[in-house]
Amino acid sequence: MTVGIIGLGLMGGSLAKAVKKYSIAKKVYGYVRNEEQKQEVLDLKLVDEVVDIETLKNESDLIVLAVPVDTIINFLPLLLDVDSKTTIMDLGSTKEFIVNNVPSKIRKNFVAAHPMVGTEKNGPKAAIDNFYEGHTVVLCNLEDNEEHHVEKVTRVFQEVGMRIVNMDAKEHDVHACFMSHLPHAISYSLANTVMGHEDPKSIIALAAGGFKDMSRVAKSSPKMWTDIFKQNRGNILESIDLFENQMKLVRELIEEEKYEDLEKWMSNANTLHEIL
Amino acid sequence: MTVGIIGLGLMGGSLAKAVKKYSIAKKVYGYVRNEEQKQEVLDLKLVDEVVDIETLKNESDLIVLAVPVDTIINFLPLLLDVDSKTTIMDLGSTKEFIVNNVPSKIRKNFVAAHPMVGTEKNGPKAAIDNFYEGHTVVLCNLEDNEEHHVEKVTRVFQEVGMRIVNMDAKEHDVHACFMSHLPHAISYSLANTVMGHEDPKSIIALAAGGFKDMSRVAKSSPKMWTDIFKQNRGNILESIDLFENQMKLVRELIEEEKYEDLEKWMSNANTLHEIL
Repeated sequence: MTVGIIGLGLMGGSLAKAVKKYSIAKKVYGYVRNEEQKQEVLDLKLVDEVVDIETLKNESDLIVLAVPVDTIINFLPLLLDVDSKTTIMDLGSTKEFIVNNVPSKIRKNFVAAHPMVGTEKNGPKAAIDNFYEGHTVVLCNLEDNEEHHVEKVTRVFQEVGMRIVNMDAKEHDVHACFMSHLPHAISYSLANTVMGHEDPKSIIALAAGGFKDMSRVAKSSPKMWTDIFKQNRGNILESIDLFENQMKLVRELIEEEKYEDLEKWMSNANTLHEIL
Repeated sequence: MTVGIIGLGLMGGSLAKAVKKYSIAKKVYGYVRNEEQKQEVLDLKLVDEVVDIETLKNESDLIVLAVPVDTIINFLPLLLDVDSKTTIMDLGSTKEFIVNNVPSKIRKNFVAAHPMVGTEKNGPKAAIDNFYEGHTVVLCNLEDNEEHHVEKVTRVFQEVGMRIVNMDAKEHDVHACFMSHLPHAISYSLANTVMGHEDPKSIIALAAGGFKDMSRVAKSSPKMWTDIFKQNRGNILESIDLFENQMKLVRELIEEEKYEDLEKWMSNANTLHEIL
């Protein structure tokens, strides 16, 4: 099949590499708006050809929207006239707002997907080999899609080595909030806490594994994450409140020197790792 | 020299491996209170000989306290009668409470050290090769030590490949709080937030890099971390308050849909990685 990928950063660029590596696509078209990134895509040979939206739309069997979640919404009107056989899918971190905004004319073509994998990097240079292998992809509200579109998307993810989970978009957004959006808000807060200190450099000189791990995702793109927080606003606010209850609790246990309760509270946190 | 290590978990066990690997110690004695761990230490051959405290104290040129920070305090009275040439050092995560509690009789012998390296694991099986290499160790209040004790400790850390930083114990505790103690409190809170959900299993099934990284240290020993929070109580309470200000801010920016300010706030967090 011919795959056309809109946006060739971490997600789109890595998918371009994967569909070529596994010979899923005979031809891969790419579209990049940003001129500097376009040159990077060409230099890195991420796709067979960088084209305009019209060509990509008319020549592709599968169109992939691998752009920030607000940009996905902006692209939808441009895809209104795709052929009924053309499949569209997105790779966005939010799902409910997106599926609700897909124009009814192309709702059957549009498969909502979220590969649960990422790094803090972005842009074409962030694209890597074997990025998707062994990870999980969530497909949402497939009952709204025509079967052959679902089959096409399923085949692609299976062939790049992903585990497929079907889920309601609303449920996905709660899950993704706990597993990804809330951790990002926390990581940005931790990074800003340290940067707010009078001498962050001397503090960071002592950074070891714990801090490095916990501040890693605070390197992620502010533009991309603003859009995600915007689209998943209700869930993120709710999950912050739940997290804040725990922070208040640990503060209280330390303040009031209730060390037995503190130890129990941490033991309860340990049980996470019996599941993870 | 002869090195005697009290406590042979991640820190002590890994140090035992290192001083043998680099031939720093001709002989390594170990003391372990827990019978099950004693057997593990013997099975893993972490030390040349597992001995009682008296033997370890009388035969060692360097005694290493590699036990939880409250246990360090408990061991100090047992070391009151060491020879003036015997060096004692601890590897605890807090420093001010410890140096303040070292009996004056052995204050000159006692070098306060904190290797800034760790994993979430504990016990003798957690001990690994090359654990210390390339990391930083903080030595505190060296003006209270006799020079030859400092020289001995410095030689050991240099030979295992560590970068040595001298710091006031008070300052160390602030730095360690931001880089390690606060991140632990946050990670435990995040883990408990997810475990408090009605169906943690189905949520955790979607865990990817971000959440895994951020919840990793919530696997750490509750007993060990209760002691650390206890000894660094003032700093941890203060740093939680600073972190909470950031969490309140991100919540408010999302709640009030101030997305431009949110993006700026995240861009500020990004600057951490120009230093890290």
